[in-house]
Amino acid sequence: MDERERGRIAPWAPPRARRRLAELEAALAGLDADGVVETVGEALSGHLRRLDEEGVVLYAGTNTMSARARAAHEVALASRPSMGWPGEKFQTGLEELDVLEVLAPLQVAALMGGGFAEVRLQSATLANLACYAAFTRPGDTIAVLPEAAGGHASHHAQGAAGIRGLNVVDLPYDAVRLDVDHGALPAFLRGHRPVLVVVGASLMLFPHDVARIRAACDEVGALLVYDASHVAGLIAGGRFQRPLDEGAHVLTMSTYKSFGGPPGAAVVTRDEERARRISEAAYPGLTANYDASRLAPLAVTAAELAAGGPAYADRCIAAAAALAEALAGEGLPVVAADRGWTASHHVAVDAAAFGGPAEAARRLAAGGVFLSGIGLPGQAPGEPMRALRIGTQEVVRRSLGPQDMGEIAVLVRRLLVDGEDPERVLPAARALRRRA
Amino acid sequence: MDERERGRIAPWAPPRARRRLAELEAALAGLDADGVVETVGEALSGHLRRLDEEGVVLYAGTNTMSARARAAHEVALASRPSMGWPGEKFQTGLEELDVLEVLAPLQVAALMGGGFAEVRLQSATLANLACYAAFTRPGDTIAVLPEAAGGHASHHAQGAAGIRGLNVVDLPYDAVRLDVDHGALPAFLRGHRPVLVVVGASLMLFPHDVARIRAACDEVGALLVYDASHVAGLIAGGRFQRPLDEGAHVLTMSTYKSFGGPPGAAVVTRDEERARRISEAAYPGLTANYDASRLAPLAVTAAELAAGGPAYADRCIAAAAALAEALAGEGLPVVAADRGWTASHHVAVDAAAFGGPAEAARRLAAGGVFLSGIGLPGQAPGEPMRALRIGTQEVVRRSLGPQDMGEIAVLVRRLLVDGEDPERVLPAARALRRRA
Repeated sequence: MDERERGRIAPWAPPRARRRLAELEAALAGLDADGVVETVGEALSGHLRRLDEEGVVLYAGTNTMSARARAAHEVALASRPSMGWPGEKFQTGLEELDVLEVLAPLQVAALMGGGFAEVRLQSATLANLACYAAFTRPGDTIAVLPEAAGGHASHHAQGAAGIRGLNVVDLPYDAVRLDVDHGALPAFLRGHRPVLVVVGASLMLFPHDVARIRAACDEVGALLVYDASHVAGLIAGGRFQRPLDEGAHVLTMSTYKSFGGPPGAAVVTRDEERARRISEAAYPGLTANYDASRLAPLAVTAAELAAGGPAYADRCIAAAAALAEALAGEGLPVVAADRGWTASHHVAVDAAAFGGPAEAARRLAAGGVFLSGIGLPGQAPGEPMRALRIGTQEVVRRSLGPQDMGEIAVLVRRLLVDGEDPERVLPAARALRRRA
Repeated sequence: MDERERGRIAPWAPPRARRRLAELEAALAGLDADGVVETVGEALSGHLRRLDEEGVVLYAGTNTMSARARAAHEVALASRPSMGWPGEKFQTGLEELDVLEVLAPLQVAALMGGGFAEVRLQSATLANLACYAAFTRPGDTIAVLPEAAGGHASHHAQGAAGIRGLNVVDLPYDAVRLDVDHGALPAFLRGHRPVLVVVGASLMLFPHDVARIRAACDEVGALLVYDASHVAGLIAGGRFQRPLDEGAHVLTMSTYKSFGGPPGAAVVTRDEERARRISEAAYPGLTANYDASRLAPLAVTAAELAAGGPAYADRCIAAAAALAEALAGEGLPVVAADRGWTASHHVAVDAAAFGGPAEAARRLAAGGVFLSGIGLPGQAPGEPMRALRIGTQEVVRRSLGPQDMGEIAVLVRRLLVDGEDPERVLPAARALRRRA
């Protein structure tokens, strides 16, 4: 690219991104206020049409809120400061917000099996950072899942762990069992002496053996954090696993994804002193004002999960099992066939034969099926990430069930195995979406 | 309080908060899903009635979005992941979001006088933390405004600076000029050798002499960050001061408050290498998914400020000047009388004679006037914060102007000076609000 074309958005980005950015910068130059409003309106309606009306959304890390949760989202609350506890806030006039500030964390804590929930943080990345701030000092070592095993960026040095200045080591991992290598763990922990161990990944096909990991942590005095960002909705429904019952000291989570609420995070624990430290890391450590508009839909979502969570979780898991089986039946290389593919709402497919996950995801998107890539546990070191990751939580929320998964598998097969023109597949994807 | 009453929300909080929390916990126990939905609905409508329909909101750090910006807020975008640059995102189907991801930062950068704007961070606290991550290492020293001079929590060790593990020192401050003590600054910087200097405060009555601070920073190689959280709307309108023109290396800001957009933040700079480092601190450092629903209202707000910003800023400043004069005329001790009270949208009142700012703010709230306390520059070390802080941005956005400020001053005088029963004042506050 000609250096004269360097734009104002990420001129340091790789060439493919720079071309797209330059194209957009040129197209968007010189708009007046009405032009901006019009462009924004078109972008919003195009986005909603593509993903919320016509697309089959199988991203593992997204969801749509229930109608009642959406109705409880009032953007006017988002710009109102609310600092400090009810009864001694810096701001006045927030008596009704007090109600939401108590209701939302009480319900989230109860649902996740904890005593205390911190819900002010805007994302699970920040929830993890709050744990680092509460329980580590810069220069300390933490141990986390390798990236190829779905260890999240916020667990690693390029993410939130690096913001805290931590030394990060990869836990030994068993790519067959898809869990920490329990045999190697005790010696590993004795060698590295991490202050904190993080489990819970961005691909969660099977539960961790949390009790066994906790026992090894106890030997070296490490705190065990379970990042439930992806599986919080299943845990809320009493399925998959109950990390705090099984020994995790702290649970962090996204409040959307499988949980199905507004964007944001929670940190849940049973211990008052740990809860206090997390709370102080959240405020005044990582928030001043915190966007209280999330609290009302979070409270509604948690209440709905308290009532309907078990059935929702069962349905997500049954849909994933059905989808995995159907994909395998259509000839797709579904990960963990020997273990029955999945025990969660996630399914993974080895995309090496389809040009890798990025290329495969582009073909699928052109055919109306939206998902993204992830590392394949056990892929060779240095190999580009090679799996496709699927989550059933959104199609289930939109009323599809196990009986519909065969049709999704056929769409995937036509696009990836048969190499059919995506334009010819798109109508079937749209029809499926419209039925949901 | 009886230890048996320890609740699940902040049992470590001071007694006043614990009483309120216990009362709320008891009232909210045992709700089923329908009960939660109903309770949430009542809390939302009560909150909106109190602050958005019947209250005169003079918080210095809030605002209401324009009708067009509100219409552009679509909560469905908030739970959609969008990781990486347009053209090479991890997720598919986001072509329309690409437009918003380019449009919003381009406009914010241009408006604030910068070349590059990072707009993914959810708050200015995180914008400041991104600067610390980009330009400091744990253990480094930074120099910031004292808390009594409005230095924000995120500048201090109990806030985001402590998350990064920084050593924080207070800049020498001139409580008469309400600026850094320029005479003392060079020797101070030579003594402490801070890597980074943060100016810009939570009470901003007058501009900083940024050029002079920058010159002193240059002597020791310190980076100068200007936190424009409160004054970004004035700066966008070309008023108050232009920090990047005057020498600040980096500008951080809230996108609501005087800017008047959705909650969130921006970090603006002119230097590509600094922009790259800030961008990497924002992603993957402090965000993975980032709540893209903010982008559309941010773009609309920026476009509206590009067109109407000068008039809006003038009106905010004129209203503050009129309010300060009217308050002084009603006998209130307005801060900085010798300098004409204010050159921004902020006004401060010494609340020592009214029981301190917390007590005064409670009386005002009971009478329908909402604001909060802040330190009084020059108050004695260790003295509890003693000023009331007022911002005119919201009443101006809601169409009040300088001509209406006399009425607000009368409300404040009746409540604080005359000690009139707030119930008797409330109808006048409501009538004023309804006219806005």
